[in-house]
Amino acid sequence: MATLTRQLANSIKVQLNLNFFRPNSTATKLVYAEHGDPIKVVHTANEPIPKPKDDEVVIKMLAAPVNPADINTIQGKYPSRPPLPAVPGNEGVGEVVSVGQGVNDLKEGDRVVPLVNALGTWRTHTVVSKNNVLKVPKKLGLVEAATLTVNPCTAFRMLRDFVDLKPGDTVIQNGANSACGQNVIQICRAWGLRSVNIVRDRAGIDELRCFLQNLGANHVLTEEELRKTEIFKSGKLEKPKLALNCVGGQNALEVMRHLDKGGTMVTYGGMSREPVTVPTSALIFKDLRIRGFWMTDWTKQNADSVDRFEMFEELISMMTTNELQGPAFKMVSFEQYKEALMNTMTIKGMIGKKYILEFK
Amino acid sequence: MATLTRQLANSIKVQLNLNFFRPNSTATKLVYAEHGDPIKVVHTANEPIPKPKDDEVVIKMLAAPVNPADINTIQGKYPSRPPLPAVPGNEGVGEVVSVGQGVNDLKEGDRVVPLVNALGTWRTHTVVSKNNVLKVPKKLGLVEAATLTVNPCTAFRMLRDFVDLKPGDTVIQNGANSACGQNVIQICRAWGLRSVNIVRDRAGIDELRCFLQNLGANHVLTEEELRKTEIFKSGKLEKPKLALNCVGGQNALEVMRHLDKGGTMVTYGGMSREPVTVPTSALIFKDLRIRGFWMTDWTKQNADSVDRFEMFEELISMMTTNELQGPAFKMVSFEQYKEALMNTMTIKGMIGKKYILEFK
Repeated sequence: MATLTRQLANSIKVQLNLNFFRPNSTATKLVYAEHGDPIKVVHTANEPIPKPKDDEVVIKMLAAPVNPADINTIQGKYPSRPPLPAVPGNEGVGEVVSVGQGVNDLKEGDRVVPLVNALGTWRTHTVVSKNNVLKVPKKLGLVEAATLTVNPCTAFRMLRDFVDLKPGDTVIQNGANSACGQNVIQICRAWGLRSVNIVRDRAGIDELRCFLQNLGANHVLTEEELRKTEIFKSGKLEKPKLALNCVGGQNALEVMRHLDKGGTMVTYGGMSREPVTVPTSALIFKDLRIRGFWMTDWTKQNADSVDRFEMFEELISMMTTNELQGPAFKMVSFEQYKEALMNTMTIKGMIGKKYILEFK
Repeated sequence: MATLTRQLANSIKVQLNLNFFRPNSTATKLVYAEHGDPIKVVHTANEPIPKPKDDEVVIKMLAAPVNPADINTIQGKYPSRPPLPAVPGNEGVGEVVSVGQGVNDLKEGDRVVPLVNALGTWRTHTVVSKNNVLKVPKKLGLVEAATLTVNPCTAFRMLRDFVDLKPGDTVIQNGANSACGQNVIQICRAWGLRSVNIVRDRAGIDELRCFLQNLGANHVLTEEELRKTEIFKSGKLEKPKLALNCVGGQNALEVMRHLDKGGTMVTYGGMSREPVTVPTSALIFKDLRIRGFWMTDWTKQNADSVDRFEMFEELISMMTTNELQGPAFKMVSFEQYKEALMNTMTIKGMIGKKYILEFK
């Protein structure tokens, strides 16, 4: 007994000396071992927090959103399939609580967001390579940090990479009230682009219109208004060179009709569950270009690119100067994750508040 | 009477001295003053052949094809609408019969093809700026010259401008037996590209398969065979980076399914009269790029480009070495133009012989 206690005491002493690790520290994580209904297949599990290796950091998660893509990943309906068992969660913000011996550029107390896909952010603590996280300033809001790497980046890249837009140029988008759409509106405002924003007619349309205009939307039109609009005929507004589509079907077709000759439509979602239909004449005689965008793939292709870090810098700068707001959200405690899952699963058309898990 | 005769004689003498013009020389042309059924709205007319101005040349047409786009233009169903009254005909080959004083680079007897769209080639003679025609070698066959500027150029540009193809890369196309499709097959062979060619099942499919294979087709598949094909799974054939579509609808969708990640489909026709439908997931997760091509527009944008004259040179070289054959054709005399119109109007799916008007 005495011997065992002494061994334990020595072991604790070594760890304390190294100042890396609090003994008996335990992480709680969500995990799924098979694809299926998230409410059924996701459960909690505890695990000891390992000591960080040389280039590793231990991160205490602060907040992690529940995105529709997280739900699809758990259901096995998403092209990204992390090996099972897997911890869900692709985005989030955490605080560094200890660092490995080889880590100089991060220290305890730093705030970080994931730099890689499918890090598994729905857990109280995680130990990752220092290269897998990006330090963000503390003045960046918790919600903005937790939701930095998907929607704002998607909006940024779609506005930057497909068409060479100049201030004064017009961009049209459907699903304009989606989380990504709100980012598009604000980045357009910041870059001097004029945005035409299509939303479905609904109860409270005036309120929504007002909300989007406050974000910087130049025009907000319902699908029906788009059909009859004269805004591109008056000559006051250039025809759009870029259309962003997260709806598909008839709505995408209506949006496409307003594109300028040689214009590009970029699809990043398909809320109507209908494909994108392109008239042959629009391809041949109007030279429309139909593309798609997937942030996950862009991240893989551009993991260490200058473009990527310049994008983070510009987005964070816009967020800290309030040019770019985070999404409408509801914080729930990590323990209430089922509420967050349920509500995200029943969101219709990406409308509504984003659920964010908060870790105490 | 005597005075009048003398005046006339002097006038004739002046013209003869200038050596530009044979008096009483009359051109016959086809003309339409309104859009409609080509058989009804197109009629013949005679006109004196004017004297060429400084930079002009008088061309005696030798042969001019009747293309489906010519029919659509007369019907008013084509986006190109020459001012009325108009002489139909977009392609052809002629012989220079006289040149203006400022013309040094063309001489009597030279063979030329139009360098501009909608020149109006369905006439015995035309007077145009020397800049509007391209001299072609006499060893170039009459049919090849008369049909140089649309189908071979369309095939060339689609294989050159959308995807950076390397020898060994695969190209897939539907409507492979179309005039353009036959050019695609032969240019692929010349450039070391492997072509997968989709055709509709039909009586005489074996003969057609053999014909296309003789042109250089690596694979010829019916639409049904395409659905079940294993050729891309065996690993022997790379997945196509480029698909060429002149059909649309379900057929285009089946072809699209075989494209490699990041691959491009270029639409240049829509024989099924159905639009191009693209699954949202193919755009987002497979990064497919859906484009269109219209030779008329390319010509406008690149009228004086180096690319254009290099293309003509390469195509003519391929034609004179028999690497690239002209289309199956039927020559009819200019007087029989109604037969050519009728037959071109009833061609189903661009299959069959191209009618070429021959001028005596």
